[in-house]
Amino acid sequence: MSDHKDEPHFSDVRVDHLADAQLTIVGLGLMGGSLAGALRGQCRHVVGIARRAETIEAALAGDLVDDATTDLEGGVAEADIVVLATPVRVILQQLATIAPLLPEGCLLMDLGSTKGDIVAAMAALPPHVQPLGGHPMCGKERSGIEVADPALYHKRTFILSPLPRTSTRALALGQALVQASGAEPLLVEAQRQDALVATVSHLPYLLACALVGTADATTSADPLVWEIVAGGFRDTSRVAGSDVTMMLDILLTNREKVVAATEVCLSQLQQLRALVASSDEAVLRTTLSAIRETRREMFP
Amino acid sequence: MSDHKDEPHFSDVRVDHLADAQLTIVGLGLMGGSLAGALRGQCRHVVGIARRAETIEAALAGDLVDDATTDLEGGVAEADIVVLATPVRVILQQLATIAPLLPEGCLLMDLGSTKGDIVAAMAALPPHVQPLGGHPMCGKERSGIEVADPALYHKRTFILSPLPRTSTRALALGQALVQASGAEPLLVEAQRQDALVATVSHLPYLLACALVGTADATTSADPLVWEIVAGGFRDTSRVAGSDVTMMLDILLTNREKVVAATEVCLSQLQQLRALVASSDEAVLRTTLSAIRETRREMFP
Repeated sequence: MSDHKDEPHFSDVRVDHLADAQLTIVGLGLMGGSLAGALRGQCRHVVGIARRAETIEAALAGDLVDDATTDLEGGVAEADIVVLATPVRVILQQLATIAPLLPEGCLLMDLGSTKGDIVAAMAALPPHVQPLGGHPMCGKERSGIEVADPALYHKRTFILSPLPRTSTRALALGQALVQASGAEPLLVEAQRQDALVATVSHLPYLLACALVGTADATTSADPLVWEIVAGGFRDTSRVAGSDVTMMLDILLTNREKVVAATEVCLSQLQQLRALVASSDEAVLRTTLSAIRETRREMFP
Repeated sequence: MSDHKDEPHFSDVRVDHLADAQLTIVGLGLMGGSLAGALRGQCRHVVGIARRAETIEAALAGDLVDDATTDLEGGVAEADIVVLATPVRVILQQLATIAPLLPEGCLLMDLGSTKGDIVAAMAALPPHVQPLGGHPMCGKERSGIEVADPALYHKRTFILSPLPRTSTRALALGQALVQASGAEPLLVEAQRQDALVATVSHLPYLLACALVGTADATTSADPLVWEIVAGGFRDTSRVAGSDVTMMLDILLTNREKVVAATEVCLSQLQQLRALVASSDEAVLRTTLSAIRETRREMFP
């Protein structure tokens, strides 16, 4: 069609079946190592790339990959699918450096927790690459290949954020990869996913941190607080133990939406404080009962 | 001593060994039913008192008690130890009505989560009763005798708040009861315990409620939030499912200290929001790393 003649020609994917694909995963931490282990045997060949020789050895010793290397260029040269499993801001750097190394039609995915900046950077990739944003909704308090677990993705939601340039076949291959990992794919546009995870994932992290900070501030007044921290506190504060580098990347690449969600939560907490302070039992009961009901609907 | 001649004579406890004691537990919900089940066989006789016939039947069917009755007067008439296992404001009413029914030297304990008001009411009890405040640091999201579990107290901290009038023998008997339940007794003065639990228990509840409220407010903008609520959200919001009547009692009998802890936390959360908003990465990294380290010290 004449009005499309200036649009670049995007190469389509090289394979349609996961079983025919060489999969290369860049970054063998908890997320990358677990994904490799989940997909090994379901792809023609699973290659892992890491910077450190010890990580390579651990991936091979743990039977998570068919092959592993510290050589980025060699590791991606024959790949049908490349998954970037590094922190968000490393992904943003790697997209530009890795894309020229990829064969024509290579599907390039990522596992970053925020999608706006990554999908924007993917849109600018050269036309021989098929980009597809991804965000698996799983993790652990600990990080690193030592805690990698091929069952990590089982039954978890795996958000996929396709671009306008992502082909139907590329998206189908990405969905097949997600399903083969045991996860359930959910298509969500990048900005929308960032707003959602700001509330359901990044805000809980900041709340957990604020709670630990409050207990720490109280400790100076009474060290006994350390002896009686109990179940409710343990659960509510758990995600404050998350990897700081990963969380910094997430917070700073989703800044506006995290700040907005935090402001809604500050307002909610101020309202609850005012209700307790005023001893307005009837309104407090109605409010707390509605919240309890909402949570029960969320987690039946 | 002449300067003590106007002090009332407080009767001391009737037994020194738990094995010799008749224990009567008033209220057979999660906490009372579980305590009965933990202590049955370690006391001479364990009697449960409940308002509803179905609760009596469930306690007997579950082998949690030796005997159970809806007759309050009859159930406490021969008791060496009575434990009030009802919500805090019910305990405050029951102290005055039950005390006259108790035999001389009866140890009267409670399981209420706040201790200031209860210990103040205990101080005014007639001198034939030996009062001792208690607060076991355990619970479940669900309530009622259906979820009672004799292992509930195992290795949990059980705060005891003795009064100036509590005798050495009464305190020793109370400690023996706590240890027999599997819990670990910790002596903490009532006002101090209320300040501590405001931070480690009541504040986490309000934070969990604020988080659920925030998600609910967001849902109206994007119902997809329901599909992607994940691990971090589930843990951080868990205690928002707590029994509302119990939590109302706790919040309203610990109002000032809960409000104070919430204000410290609001300030912590505002600081974190400001650091994210300003993208001050160095300070944010230092702050989040210190918080992570603090939590690791709390839960090694």
